[in-house]
Amino acid sequence: MAGNTFGKRFTLTTFGESHGPAIGGIIDGCPAGVLLDFEAIQHELNRRRPGQSSIVTQRKEPDEVEFLSGIFEGKTTGAPIAFIIYNTNQKSTDYSHIKDVYRPSHADYTYDKKYGIRDYRGGGRSSARETISRVVGGTIAKQLIPEVKINAFVSSVGDIFINKPYQELDFSLTESNAVRCPDIQTAEKMETYIKEIRKQGDTVGGTITCVIQNVPVGLGEPVFDKLHAELGKAMLSINAVKGFEYGSGFCGARMKGSEHNDLFNTDGTTKTNLSGGIQGGISNGMDIYFRVAFKPVATIMQKQQTINNKGQITDMQGKGRHDPCVVPRAVPIVEAMAALVLADYALI
Amino acid sequence: MAGNTFGKRFTLTTFGESHGPAIGGIIDGCPAGVLLDFEAIQHELNRRRPGQSSIVTQRKEPDEVEFLSGIFEGKTTGAPIAFIIYNTNQKSTDYSHIKDVYRPSHADYTYDKKYGIRDYRGGGRSSARETISRVVGGTIAKQLIPEVKINAFVSSVGDIFINKPYQELDFSLTESNAVRCPDIQTAEKMETYIKEIRKQGDTVGGTITCVIQNVPVGLGEPVFDKLHAELGKAMLSINAVKGFEYGSGFCGARMKGSEHNDLFNTDGTTKTNLSGGIQGGISNGMDIYFRVAFKPVATIMQKQQTINNKGQITDMQGKGRHDPCVVPRAVPIVEAMAALVLADYALI
Amino acid sequence: MAGNTFGKRFTLTTFGESHGPAIGGIIDGCPAGVLLDFEAIQHELNRRRPGQSSIVTQRKEPDEVEFLSGIFEGKTTGAPIAFIIYNTNQKSTDYSHIKDVYRPSHADYTYDKKYGIRDYRGGGRSSARETISRVVGGTIAKQLIPEVKINAFVSSVGDIFINKPYQELDFSLTESNAVRCPDIQTAEKMETYIKEIRKQGDTVGGTITCVIQNVPVGLGEPVFDKLHAELGKAMLSINAVKGFEYGSGFCGARMKGSEHNDLFNTDGTTKTNLSGGIQGGISNGMDIYFRVAFKPVATIMQKQQTINNKGQITDMQGKGRHDPCVVPRAVPIVEAMAALVLADYALI
Amino acid sequence: MAGNTFGKRFTLTTFGESHGPAIGGIIDGCPAGVLLDFEAIQHELNRRRPGQSSIVTQRKEPDEVEFLSGIFEGKTTGAPIAFIIYNTNQKSTDYSHIKDVYRPSHADYTYDKKYGIRDYRGGGRSSARETISRVVGGTIAKQLIPEVKINAFVSSVGDIFINKPYQELDFSLTESNAVRCPDIQTAEKMETYIKEIRKQGDTVGGTITCVIQNVPVGLGEPVFDKLHAELGKAMLSINAVKGFEYGSGFCGARMKGSEHNDLFNTDGTTKTNLSGGIQGGISNGMDIYFRVAFKPVATIMQKQQTINNKGQITDMQGKGRHDPCVVPRAVPIVEAMAALVLADYALI
Repeated sequence: MAGNTFGKRFTLTTFGESHGPAIGGIIDGCPAGVLLDFEAIQHELNRRRPGQSSIVTQRKEPDEVEFLSGIFEGKTTGAPIAFIIYNTNQKSTDYSHIKDVYRPSHADYTYDKKYGIRDYRGGGRSSARETISRVVGGTIAKQLIPEVKINAFVSSVGDIFINKPYQELDFSLTESNAVRCPDIQTAEKMETYIKEIRKQGDTVGGTITCVIQNVPVGLGEPVFDKLHAELGKAMLSINAVKGFEYGSGFCGARMKGSEHNDLFNTDGTTKTNLSGGIQGGISNGMDIYFRVAFKPVATIMQKQQTINNKGQITDMQGKGRHDPCVVPRAVPIVEAMAALVLADYALI
Repeated sequence: MAGNTFGKRFTLTTFGESHGPAIGGIIDGCPAGVLLDFEAIQHELNRRRPGQSSIVTQRKEPDEVEFLSGIFEGKTTGAPIAFIIYNTNQKSTDYSHIKDVYRPSHADYTYDKKYGIRDYRGGGRSSARETISRVVGGTIAKQLIPEVKINAFVSSVGDIFINKPYQELDFSLTESNAVRCPDIQTAEKMETYIKEIRKQGDTVGGTITCVIQNVPVGLGEPVFDKLHAELGKAMLSINAVKGFEYGSGFCGARMKGSEHNDLFNTDGTTKTNLSGGIQGGISNGMDIYFRVAFKPVATIMQKQQTINNKGQITDMQGKGRHDPCVVPRAVPIVEAMAALVLADYALI
Repeated sequence: MAGNTFGKRFTLTTFGESHGPAIGGIIDGCPAGVLLDFEAIQHELNRRRPGQSSIVTQRKEPDEVEFLSGIFEGKTTGAPIAFIIYNTNQKSTDYSHIKDVYRPSHADYTYDKKYGIRDYRGGGRSSARETISRVVGGTIAKQLIPEVKINAFVSSVGDIFINKPYQELDFSLTESNAVRCPDIQTAEKMETYIKEIRKQGDTVGGTITCVIQNVPVGLGEPVFDKLHAELGKAMLSINAVKGFEYGSGFCGARMKGSEHNDLFNTDGTTKTNLSGGIQGGISNGMDIYFRVAFKPVATIMQKQQTINNKGQITDMQGKGRHDPCVVPRAVPIVEAMAALVLADYALI
Repeated sequence: MAGNTFGKRFTLTTFGESHGPAIGGIIDGCPAGVLLDFEAIQHELNRRRPGQSSIVTQRKEPDEVEFLSGIFEGKTTGAPIAFIIYNTNQKSTDYSHIKDVYRPSHADYTYDKKYGIRDYRGGGRSSARETISRVVGGTIAKQLIPEVKINAFVSSVGDIFINKPYQELDFSLTESNAVRCPDIQTAEKMETYIKEIRKQGDTVGGTITCVIQNVPVGLGEPVFDKLHAELGKAMLSINAVKGFEYGSGFCGARMKGSEHNDLFNTDGTTKTNLSGGIQGGISNGMDIYFRVAFKPVATIMQKQQTINNKGQITDMQGKGRHDPCVVPRAVPIVEAMAALVLADYALI
């Protein structure tokens, strides 16, 4: 199970299982002399944390990050930055009922087949708790490219969509509501719907749109490491993600070239931006925007038929924490991963 | 411009510009003792080649691959496999009209800004001619995992979609028509539409669906190198791709967990496959399927306003080869990239 | 300051400064299902630890390793293995006298120039305390290749050399004395000499010889990643190392081909082994042996003239811990690095 | 057999066997806009080439390099630079006598055991002909760091050594004689000795010293990628190399700290330079110097007993080309590898 490092120049290597003693990571390649904003890091961790509102899971865990190296008198030294977040709330006994059972659409079956051993406590390494480390790394990455503005928000929940282009939205409203949707009327509908889903013991999917502004021209590397290819990989590596599109995306596949081409202004900006801020895999200075699809999470509070590790049919009843819709909590994770990609290219 | 290597264990490093002397690549990490099927490689190159039918570009170039190393008496030796395809048909003078001009929605502007120098002949490194090397590498990759069946096909052109699940299609019909659509009635509509677009001097986008069958359980590496994350990156690195979704994809984001969960059969297979053959980033043995969105290519035969490298407005008229729809030609490229990803994981 | 990861398949990424809160690392790529021998790990840490005998530094620090992830019920799970060792004994005030001073032949000057910032407490990242993480990683690596026997020992201190081929030594005697020299008479001379050096407030260099037995045929990758090239890099990355030679080494450069060629026995073994167990960069099953040169460490208890960070001449007097000869303590580090290299190749 | 790429930022991936159609490589990560000096590249290839004087092998092969990509109007474009050198002189029939035989101290046995297949023609991938690609890559690397002066020379052949510190040598004399020794009297002795060895049908080893001047402060990355660790790996990856030492090297292991420490001048330079221009793995601006040990090459013109691939004893008689001492020809290779290491770090 290599594959726990992201990035080539600004690298984040993470560790930790849901119910082990701690999770964390090591950032290597961070330039020296950066005065870190620790409050911003904790703020983003709090945004990611469960238990923030009535619509999300009730588990309360402080997620306090401790830095172990690479920082001296508040500044990065160029040495690797290690950080750790202790799991203060784990109760391994909670998970005995799934010890021998493969939960549908979880990673239980594939991990067991691949590794021949499975840390069944709360998903182990496959738990979304792993994304805490991404948020820490991504928030530090943002501090390397302070001019770049990254704003993600929930653009749909189930069949409820924002019906406006992002240019008409006020990103400062994203945090004003529990679903992280900057369109207030849509946010209310989403919230109502999620509460209903919660009552059903069910879950629902959604999409996140991310807009990156003030990007320098020239980020991205042909031909395999195109900027949008790395952004796509970054997003698809987040738990529950099923799709990624940028610029015109899947709609662009229905268009003609004469409609789709972005004509230039004399300063090199373009009149339209169906390209999504990237041409030939390299940023052109226009807004980068993309959309990420999240499936409904697999942990539902309903009874489901499944199998155990002997191949026998068994019933299971969901227990414990229940997130009817993780999409709002994924907003800071999407932003963090975008920052990791951009900082990595900015360091070339 | 690093970024010309794909893969970690079975690596493909490519080189070459549209109008340089040659393109090609080096494969490193190929196991020894593999008896290569050279006809299969040439066959795939022919599938990718322009000028195969009335609906595509007329440039005829043999694209004959020559192997330079790593093979002895027809078998791989474990040494790096270098290959080269000479560009026999390039005429640099063809491109003098775009020397100082940034073509809309091409990579001209971003390359010039990033590198301060631009090989303007036919797109240089950003030309889709680069994908020849991917096809060679991918076809060798396929020979490392012969049990795996990879079938891509055109699933939409503009607004014309196949309206059937892939299970109802006969993949052996994909090559029976110029648009590489295994649903014959839809193929005819697509072909008619592309001819119309061609007459207009325009281009149109489309989607490719790829189905991978008989995949061993256990391919993919948590947490950043999930199998679908690498597949996504691989597809997004192909010229003109704007989106990627796998399994339930963007539709999955509209569903409930109780609908989306794939219940198990006693043998570990699942009754449904909204997961798309991957759980927790690891293949589960079910079919992997995904969809790739291609925008319409930017080279149109209509007059467009643009700017030159002095920031002056100028008109340009498309000339030369014209591909009204590259999506059919991208089918072998999608298959090749999928093979590269799978072979890379299979070598762990 | 990237460069904190060792290995390609079995990777060790380390962090930590001498006087930060902790040091540690993450191992990625460790196969699942390995029952770890934690006592062996602690045993090796104890071997590396200062303060073990009258000839070495008196700092006593437990160096207890805590594992944070990747292990379940005593076995590796395939997930990344994180470990941490808290620095329980650091007193930053000890180092105020060197805050603005560049100690001769330390990394103070180069770190300050490269990073523009310097964690002056005990050498910061450049401290040999960093090697603790190597010992943890290397001891786990050994457990992946249990058949391989790695024995390092001190072969010279100053001008005192073992005057026997390694085949005449009994490696079980290495740990019988404070200098880790398996030739008891030579060990006594070395010990006497080091005590004398200690009294002078001086330090002395030495060499370590390492013998690796029972190596499978076939480890190593042409052409750049030859087995001995990676072993050399591994050893040269240890603090204070100035040279590496394997097999016939520098003596081989004085020989004729007719003397140096290792003739075969019919079973593929060789009658002599001037090749040092590696031919063409690949292990041939014979003993691998190499020698590593350590300079005398720069921290001496004598008064020296030096400069401060304003370029002014200043006197400095060494204080605090004093290791007259670190070579014995480096023995487990050499073994650990050798194990990391071998395990990395064994996982291909 | 991965392992054919050197470097992390400025990467060289090579291919080619002694008797295949061609050898060559791809450079990725070369900055754009560098005006290449093609004559310098050919000049270095000529230096490496066999058949230059009476003391070396008589094979004459032009080794003309052809560039295939990444260069436009004489300048690098940022795209990967591919180059190829056709093998014009190979005669596979020459090697039929070693087809089934494992030559002593060659890579025949290990390649056959590792890969199960062996390109027996002239050593295949293990042939020193592979170093041509290193010379091309290294000469381009030098052009990225034009201020740095890299001078290698033969410092010993057999027991004949230069008995002067490098500071007393005139590097401009290195090319004045066939053995590439800048000390003319020693050069004559070496030449006489090599001619004698040649008559015996034997070979002899030697050492190369390399001095790198005018290095910027700050190259090198702690802790595993120390500058001297990469230099060591680079040198040890060259065919026939058995040892590497830098600065005080193995002699340093015999010294006391009070003798070895390099005291500072007020400008940060040091009065002595036993450190060899590197402290804590980072260049300090002083001369970097190191020494590389080459064993005598294994191909001798005497009869030797050996085994075939059935484990039977057989006699073999060396035939064909015979290099009594490859050390002079390795001088440009040592310089090329040093340049690759430095350019790689300079691009961080």
